[in-house]
Amino acid sequence: MTASESKVFSRASGLAAWKQVADSIEADIAAGRISPGDRIAPEAQLAERFGVNRHTVRRGLADLAERGLVRATQGSGTFVEARPLAYPIGLKTRFSEVMAKAGKEARGELVSAEHGNADAATAEALKIKPGAPVLDMLTVNRADGVPLSLARTFLPLPRFLGLEQIFATKGSLTKAYKKFGLDDYKRLSTRITARPAAADEAQMLDIAPGRTLLIINAINVDMDGKPIQSTLSRFVADRVELVVER
Amino acid sequence: MTASESKVFSRASGLAAWKQVADSIEADIAAGRISPGDRIAPEAQLAERFGVNRHTVRRGLADLAERGLVRATQGSGTFVEARPLAYPIGLKTRFSEVMAKAGKEARGELVSAEHGNADAATAEALKIKPGAPVLDMLTVNRADGVPLSLARTFLPLPRFLGLEQIFATKGSLTKAYKKFGLDDYKRLSTRITARPAAADEAQMLDIAPGRTLLIINAINVDMDGKPIQSTLSRFVADRVELVVER
Repeated sequence: MTASESKVFSRASGLAAWKQVADSIEADIAAGRISPGDRIAPEAQLAERFGVNRHTVRRGLADLAERGLVRATQGSGTFVEARPLAYPIGLKTRFSEVMAKAGKEARGELVSAEHGNADAATAEALKIKPGAPVLDMLTVNRADGVPLSLARTFLPLPRFLGLEQIFATKGSLTKAYKKFGLDDYKRLSTRITARPAAADEAQMLDIAPGRTLLIINAINVDMDGKPIQSTLSRFVADRVELVVER
Repeated sequence: MTASESKVFSRASGLAAWKQVADSIEADIAAGRISPGDRIAPEAQLAERFGVNRHTVRRGLADLAERGLVRATQGSGTFVEARPLAYPIGLKTRFSEVMAKAGKEARGELVSAEHGNADAATAEALKIKPGAPVLDMLTVNRADGVPLSLARTFLPLPRFLGLEQIFATKGSLTKAYKKFGLDDYKRLSTRITARPAAADEAQMLDIAPGRTLLIINAINVDMDGKPIQSTLSRFVADRVELVVER
């Protein structure tokens, strides 16, 4: 892209400078001059190109992020948001396999893990007694490095004692289950709703606070029908489209 | 409820007056002093109770609506939002039957209907040629009078010529289909995402602009597998929880 192609900045237009920066980059995306997944030029370069200061560039980029057109990462720059990924919700819904089929590298990153006691809802989901011991894991699940979901997963103890350490190494729950002799499992129930992201969720998912999240409550069971996992996943709505399988 | 129970208003607290009004009503809801579906006292009455003007009351109510705690209708007042309704997504997903099971009266209201030509996506969904004639209906679907979804439905013509008139009378697509000799049909595909509501959508759904919508793209087919309907539904995320059936 040359500067002349995209420079539409004009002091005379009456639009705020940050809005002109945002509009210009939006036009570049719409016209395909920059593509989903591309990195936006660094702030300093944009400031020079538009003849504005970096604060103005930042405000323009923040506007694009708030509208879900770009994704601001911590440290490695701002990227054009990719088209949403089709995410099948079926009997065997596994993040890693869905990603592999889409040609993406899946990776679950362990944010935290602790031992806790099941609250009423978790106990009901896992068919254990309220207060029974559970492993409580928080993970960020990425596709080619882009965060797709933030998941809080409860697993019954002592059955899955130490699973978090295997997950931290393997980056996949399906792989971690294998170490516990669990070669297969299936989805029992899936409930879906949506709401805006809170500040802490937004930060972990590289989105602007308030962007829409798809909230999925899922229960998985082993092949004997015994619950093994209750997960609250928060998917970035701009990045996935859920496909209900028949 | 007596005024003394809920009046927590204090000029000295440092909080803006509208915020104190909102907090007080929120506390009433949390404590069960007013229940989901209840009408909030009229503005004039709230103004008197809190010793503020009606503008301040309106701002407090707007804050509650923006947070999804109340629903402001056009003309009949402001209501406490009900708990979300479980909405099963299965092989036979019919709005009217889902509502009947939940003990709610379902009613589809025809906003507009026109003849149009299938765009590429609609043609693919309905397995017709791009540009082929379609019936293009916009409907608001209510449960006990509360808008749950705004749906844009495309149906192939001439097969369903005049269906909008039957829908307008019956308030149900399932009932309208029967008049076309279609006693049964099934769901072929369901895709789900989410985003904030635009101003026109918000107005038709009695929600504050920007509240979260669950966006459902669904295709229904007759028992021979022939597509009969492609619908883009926008559900108020606060009012439903989608349940994926096995």
